[in-house]
Amino acid sequence: MISESMKALTAGSSVIRAMFEEGKKMADIYGKENVYDFSLGNPSVNPPSVIKDAINTILDNEDPKTVHGYMNNAGFEDVREKIAASLNERFLTHFNGSNILMTVGAAGGLNVIFRTLLNPEDEVVVFTPYFGEYRNYAANYGAVLVAAGTDKETFLPDIEDLERKISEKTRILLINTPNNPTGVVYSKRVLEDIADVLRNKSKEYGAPIYLVSDEPYRELVYDGVEVPYVTGIYENTIVGYSYSKSLSLPGERIGYLVLPDELDGAEEIKAAANVANRILGFVNAPSLMQKVIGECLDASVDTGIYDANRKLLYESLISYGYTCVRPQGAFYLFVKTFDVDDREFTKAAK
Amino acid sequence: MISESMKALTAGSSVIRAMFEEGKKMADIYGKENVYDFSLGNPSVNPPSVIKDAINTILDNEDPKTVHGYMNNAGFEDVREKIAASLNERFLTHFNGSNILMTVGAAGGLNVIFRTLLNPEDEVVVFTPYFGEYRNYAANYGAVLVAAGTDKETFLPDIEDLERKISEKTRILLINTPNNPTGVVYSKRVLEDIADVLRNKSKEYGAPIYLVSDEPYRELVYDGVEVPYVTGIYENTIVGYSYSKSLSLPGERIGYLVLPDELDGAEEIKAAANVANRILGFVNAPSLMQKVIGECLDASVDTGIYDANRKLLYESLISYGYTCVRPQGAFYLFVKTFDVDDREFTKAAK
Repeated sequence: MISESMKALTAGSSVIRAMFEEGKKMADIYGKENVYDFSLGNPSVNPPSVIKDAINTILDNEDPKTVHGYMNNAGFEDVREKIAASLNERFLTHFNGSNILMTVGAAGGLNVIFRTLLNPEDEVVVFTPYFGEYRNYAANYGAVLVAAGTDKETFLPDIEDLERKISEKTRILLINTPNNPTGVVYSKRVLEDIADVLRNKSKEYGAPIYLVSDEPYRELVYDGVEVPYVTGIYENTIVGYSYSKSLSLPGERIGYLVLPDELDGAEEIKAAANVANRILGFVNAPSLMQKVIGECLDASVDTGIYDANRKLLYESLISYGYTCVRPQGAFYLFVKTFDVDDREFTKAAK
Repeated sequence: MISESMKALTAGSSVIRAMFEEGKKMADIYGKENVYDFSLGNPSVNPPSVIKDAINTILDNEDPKTVHGYMNNAGFEDVREKIAASLNERFLTHFNGSNILMTVGAAGGLNVIFRTLLNPEDEVVVFTPYFGEYRNYAANYGAVLVAAGTDKETFLPDIEDLERKISEKTRILLINTPNNPTGVVYSKRVLEDIADVLRNKSKEYGAPIYLVSDEPYRELVYDGVEVPYVTGIYENTIVGYSYSKSLSLPGERIGYLVLPDELDGAEEIKAAANVANRILGFVNAPSLMQKVIGECLDASVDTGIYDANRKLLYESLISYGYTCVRPQGAFYLFVKTFDVDDREFTKAAK
């Protein structure tokens, strides 16, 4: 009864459900407190206390019809201006409120920009390994995901393979740094190499290839590593951001897109993304949370907890003989198993 | 630079922007307090005070990692159970939590069910006049909107035209009662006539035609009129609901879909809608607001204010010689102008 394209997706999602059910079974046998849930990217760190304070202040002082009401589909003007100013201060950019589109998390933002830019059969290039949802986001609009390779030791982009994988159908290169699932952060040098390829290929095919940088893990970095701001490196860059991890608010669905004036067709893209946000049914990012973000731009979660977990897990696994790139960001480990067959390995581990 | 399908949509949306800009110009000339904004469906009535109380109670008593965290993509189990129980009490239905999918407003819910059910080139039938966004929601998935007629005096469905407009490509009949923009409410008799057509046509074409009932205005009815619950009338009914109007929370993007067990392929549809909610980038309905709804199921806004506005506007317009069906619900008036050309009329009115 469901659409053709949903059949495969729904069948595929039962693997995750099977994992979840297996976890429940194990909890029954071994006790809930002895089963650790690594299945979802749900933060284990509390949101900063300023979130609750901001909610209370807003509810006590502002008109509830505004706090809970419709605004411009792109978001409250004052919140967008504040985010632009904060980015300008941190990254020496030159954004204003019109460059910020408030979205229903980063997943909502990616869907908005895919709906805005992609024609059916267009291609989106990503580097392996990548967040599995990217394939579905592209499929929503009839577009196709194309995987480019990475170095098997470092998981850094294979620039030559990127050149091979870009075709005249490529509209977007989607990057994710700090990366889910490897934790790798791309340096300025790596991003410059990517930019060179995109510029050459845009010229070769006579149409811009947009770089979409999905950055929900930007603030979760360790050992003082720097995450370069990509709009300063490649002119056709769109940034997707989320407060899911930086403020531990994943359920609230709050984030934004940065649509710089340097984009080829910037005005057209800004107008179309606004419409896409509306017609995809988001309409606008949740209103109270927009206002909360406006009051909490300098807040962050305690990343020390993630860092301690990272060290414990990474060093333990390495000491057991596993191989794994040491993650510089995010809260994932991408571990090479001893066995070739991952299902067999999983059974044995259980 | 934007996708082909977004070009026409973005161009079309500039009409609304022109209207908005015109309003700003008039406010400059006549004073902001003398220009009434009828452009958006933003409630003019405050949310009930229990909303603020519920937010405070939840923030004071529950684990912030749960309140602001990911849950099942379909929503918090306890909230879904409470909504099901509330519907069962009000409408003598037999739902449980698994029949409720929490969504990012009704617009999000319609996109979820369209993504779930529609193949490219499938048809969605609606009755004229209809909420203009329906066409865009169908276009998101390559489907086509087909308009069936209504009686020009009453705006009730033309059942014979419905029969003509349903084809083998029809997957969904989308109704909206109380209606935007006419305010008309469909009686049980009207809904039974629609159900008869859908049953016959489903049989004729050998595939179920789903009735999607978009009900953001269900609680905004006047003169004691009853809005029948459609799942009791036609077995293949899916209900879309939103708290945007009933609790004056449009900016918060909170609503739900009802997916009854009576649906042809109910289990498949429930599983696929859950996946669609995730991959469209909604992921889940905003988490704090889900919990707030769970505490405010018996609350409502003061519809007396809308009723007073309705009477004033309707009776005044009629006294000036306009013709207009007397709305039984929602907060719109669909007025026949004196002039054939609506642009000329608008100029003159200005």
